[in-house]
Amino acid sequence: MVDFDNLPFGKVFTDHMLICEYKDGNWGEPEILPYGPIPMTPALHALHYGQAVFEGMKAYRKVDGTVSIFRPEANFNRLNRSAERMTIPTVPKEIFMDGLVELIKLDYDWVPFGENLSLYIRPFLYASSEFIAARPSDSYVFCILLSPSGPYYSGSVKVKIEERYVRSADGGVGFAKAAGNYGAAFYPTRLAQQEGYTQIIWTDHKNHHLIEESGTMNIAVVIDGVFRTPALSERILAGITRDSILTLLNDQNFPIKEGPITVDELVTAAREKRVSEMFGMGTAAVISPISHLGFRDEVIEIPTPDNGLSALVKKSLTDIRLGKVEDTFGWMYDIEKPVQHPTYS
Amino acid sequence: MVDFDNLPFGKVFTDHMLICEYKDGNWGEPEILPYGPIPMTPALHALHYGQAVFEGMKAYRKVDGTVSIFRPEANFNRLNRSAERMTIPTVPKEIFMDGLVELIKLDYDWVPFGENLSLYIRPFLYASSEFIAARPSDSYVFCILLSPSGPYYSGSVKVKIEERYVRSADGGVGFAKAAGNYGAAFYPTRLAQQEGYTQIIWTDHKNHHLIEESGTMNIAVVIDGVFRTPALSERILAGITRDSILTLLNDQNFPIKEGPITVDELVTAAREKRVSEMFGMGTAAVISPISHLGFRDEVIEIPTPDNGLSALVKKSLTDIRLGKVEDTFGWMYDIEKPVQHPTYS
Repeated sequence: MVDFDNLPFGKVFTDHMLICEYKDGNWGEPEILPYGPIPMTPALHALHYGQAVFEGMKAYRKVDGTVSIFRPEANFNRLNRSAERMTIPTVPKEIFMDGLVELIKLDYDWVPFGENLSLYIRPFLYASSEFIAARPSDSYVFCILLSPSGPYYSGSVKVKIEERYVRSADGGVGFAKAAGNYGAAFYPTRLAQQEGYTQIIWTDHKNHHLIEESGTMNIAVVIDGVFRTPALSERILAGITRDSILTLLNDQNFPIKEGPITVDELVTAAREKRVSEMFGMGTAAVISPISHLGFRDEVIEIPTPDNGLSALVKKSLTDIRLGKVEDTFGWMYDIEKPVQHPTYS
Repeated sequence: MVDFDNLPFGKVFTDHMLICEYKDGNWGEPEILPYGPIPMTPALHALHYGQAVFEGMKAYRKVDGTVSIFRPEANFNRLNRSAERMTIPTVPKEIFMDGLVELIKLDYDWVPFGENLSLYIRPFLYASSEFIAARPSDSYVFCILLSPSGPYYSGSVKVKIEERYVRSADGGVGFAKAAGNYGAAFYPTRLAQQEGYTQIIWTDHKNHHLIEESGTMNIAVVIDGVFRTPALSERILAGITRDSILTLLNDQNFPIKEGPITVDELVTAAREKRVSEMFGMGTAAVISPISHLGFRDEVIEIPTPDNGLSALVKKSLTDIRLGKVEDTFGWMYDIEKPVQHPTYS
């Protein structure tokens, strides 16, 4: 039995998964199979050459008991942008969307009830040819897994401004959700954790002068009452949570500045207590408040107000996702209640 | 039947493979299994987060019919350096070396005869936990595959100096044989191939002023009679072929300079015909002569002499590998002839 009150993140899977194979230059018929191991060759291309990209999004159980996915088309578009950079064939929209809808209808009962719970959706693509030579794979697999999940982080995080390691560089794959970006980040993150931090704040690859991302999330900081976040670049993932938050704040006429934030500017503002809030933005964590900013030997406390901007934004997003307010931005993609599962009174 | 006269690279596998699992903080007993698919979860950590590293080395059939591996301990050491950077537990030496020897003894008959043939050995490590959250895996697999292989490239290559994309950056994982480094390089390589080139010459991440590597190989260029290759850095793979060639040339008192080569210096020297040879160095290709150097709209011809330095070096390496000359550097690791396969008269 799954304990929905204590769901870990990404460890519990639903009954089914979607699999679709690409070979001889074409995508085949998608299949829905019981979730479980499949035979794979140890010469599987992706295990050797890292041609693999993924997405992460969430389906929510609305207060009326129906199920809705948050902005799946944005994830679909980003998956294909990642795929292109990694020389993986793009997935046709109907395979992605129709497959997703059919899969969720089948596992509708798995979408958890509760404000902090959701069905995490993991579409991914990997190179599946059986050869070991450093050239693109001939065949690929598109797969969707579903995982009912609790919150990603709990509480606020301590972050360290990283000046030794980098996550991405101009001309690299930082904007793509490429598998290798994540594995490469574990070591510097572990070093930061050994110093007592939760996560790293990445800086640029040239001089470590610019703030880039926070761990696996986009970063936001409110300085002198202005919402600041680095502009998108080839080095930064185009977060859908980031985009949604910008849209919400724009709609509310909150002062916003998308553009460079230097380390010097951030540290100075934090020291002078002109930073009223700072947080990570991402699908898994949604919003992750930052309580401490580490820079070299200094640790600066950052306010984490209960009723600040991040709390407001999180509530706005939650209200839309749970259907408590009108979805004025057209973000929710409703899943028709399957006939065979009619009871949520 | 395997056609040993027309072996592709990395597509034919021998009868057996070695598998060893790491879990609960320990490496288990290595097992030798028939080569073939194994059940893997689609939530396999490595497919999502790219925690995967590999090695490549070769066993040769000597002229006396016995089998020897070229510098396996160098590959063992590098595998563990790669593993460390990717937060993968290092493999104990006895598991690596004893497993390798046992596996090759069992598949001894698969080591091909012939000057340009070898048994390509692929040790690799991948994250095997069944969860989808961006933190290091709990379990890992160490595996060795064997693949009798022909030459990697045939003939000389046309290379393009890349000024848009990068392979690695300071603080990144370029020095590691991490899976993601390879997948990320396919797209820029494909663009160069569409322009008629075979490979890319990577330049540095800051300004594209420095020559770094050639495709998946280290690069060497003979300018004004001096053998030049970039010094090792965090951005450059510590090639074992590169190291062996440097050792050979040092032994022969050939003038060597390990250090920065600027794009400007290389292009100017090539234009002025002061480049007598240029080539890639790597396990798969051994030496890959470069015949054309592309820089922006210019294509400069580079000599590929039949009896130049690269031919000399290649012959020296081949003579050592095939046991035609004494192995004065102690590079060859002999495999005892298995009792059950006694006939190579």
